[in-house]
Amino acid sequence: MLEKIDIRGKVLSANEKYSIRNSDLLKEHKILCLNMISSPGSGKTSILIRTIKELKDKIRIGVIEGDIKTDIDGQKISDTGTATIQINTEGMCHLLAGHINEAMSRLPMQNLDLIFIENIGNLVCPSAFDLGETAKVVVLSTAEGDDKPAKYPSTFARATVLLVNKTDMLKIPNTVDFDFGRATADARRLNKSLTIFPISAKTGDGFAGWCEWLVQYTEKLHHGR
Amino acid sequence: MLEKIDIRGKVLSANEKYSIRNSDLLKEHKILCLNMISSPGSGKTSILIRTIKELKDKIRIGVIEGDIKTDIDGQKISDTGTATIQINTEGMCHLLAGHINEAMSRLPMQNLDLIFIENIGNLVCPSAFDLGETAKVVVLSTAEGDDKPAKYPSTFARATVLLVNKTDMLKIPNTVDFDFGRATADARRLNKSLTIFPISAKTGDGFAGWCEWLVQYTEKLHHGR
Repeated sequence: MLEKIDIRGKVLSANEKYSIRNSDLLKEHKILCLNMISSPGSGKTSILIRTIKELKDKIRIGVIEGDIKTDIDGQKISDTGTATIQINTEGMCHLLAGHINEAMSRLPMQNLDLIFIENIGNLVCPSAFDLGETAKVVVLSTAEGDDKPAKYPSTFARATVLLVNKTDMLKIPNTVDFDFGRATADARRLNKSLTIFPISAKTGDGFAGWCEWLVQYTEKLHHGR
Repeated sequence: MLEKIDIRGKVLSANEKYSIRNSDLLKEHKILCLNMISSPGSGKTSILIRTIKELKDKIRIGVIEGDIKTDIDGQKISDTGTATIQINTEGMCHLLAGHINEAMSRLPMQNLDLIFIENIGNLVCPSAFDLGETAKVVVLSTAEGDDKPAKYPSTFARATVLLVNKTDMLKIPNTVDFDFGRATADARRLNKSLTIFPISAKTGDGFAGWCEWLVQYTEKLHHGR
């Protein structure tokens, strides 16, 4: 008699195991956890700092800050008074769920409504590694050009929200070459249900809508609706 | 008696084997081959197009164009009349030396002085995979911010040239927040011998120096000096 072992659904990678643990922890504590993914220099840190300042009286926020080598961004976030855990990947191009699991063990989970994970600046690799987050947010700067959703589809396909940042540059003649309609149409072609907010972390334009989305989502999780 | 096998220098990865083959091919044909690495949207394609136009009567150029899914950039390069080989990595975040070996077999190697490889837009992974190129060129856009050399050190440490692109934006008030001195000092701290050209692919500023560097390097290889 030949005995067969069905490995489907049984052999989980270490990343998948930690991802499930993180997801369970977040559900237990009713925390919204957003995995922020983008190219280097799209403005993730500036977006987080402005978001934290706008929401500090409404939502309790923690940040897990990924960086290859430095704590440049982590210090900036921490300076806002936010509970911030720095992870240095020492060369690795994306965060792993195990990193996040350790970071969560150091965050005051019972006192948080929202955790932002700032991933390594990389528009390709991070989207392939689930961290147990509630949702992925992709940031695209207008300075990167409107062809990025077509050229780097995986992150846009897996994101729940697209933040188009540095919209202030669109108003200055001869700076960026960015067709908002083309970029968002390409992104929506990959991902019909994508929620899109044009924002400027510099001027604050568009933050009302993005922050309202965060408030409503955290309230929904909190009330289990 | 215990027999020991020294594996140092003997076990080469497939990438290392192809990298050596590519390097040999380039030396045989006296071709300068530059591996262009940067974040998405820093302007690699625009730089190549302007460089090709400026040098088309002086240097015979071929391009190997890496892209995850599309041929958007490859078409633009090809439209200049340049021999262009498109490689689609179908999700992979960097080019491999095997890709380049196949591309070289399709390029008119005996009629080229210079090959540009446009790598996948990714400031982390591509620098870890030698392609057999003569040198790496890292492109940093002023819109990405001046902290990128410190935050993404591996590519800057391994590059021969740093092109700081989109310098036109430095002249427009309230656009980018970029201290040229800080960025280049951080890059030089990682890499003392780095050659740095501030350029604008939009206006052509700084291209005289970059193109002269290319002409001199190709001449040096050609005359074996």
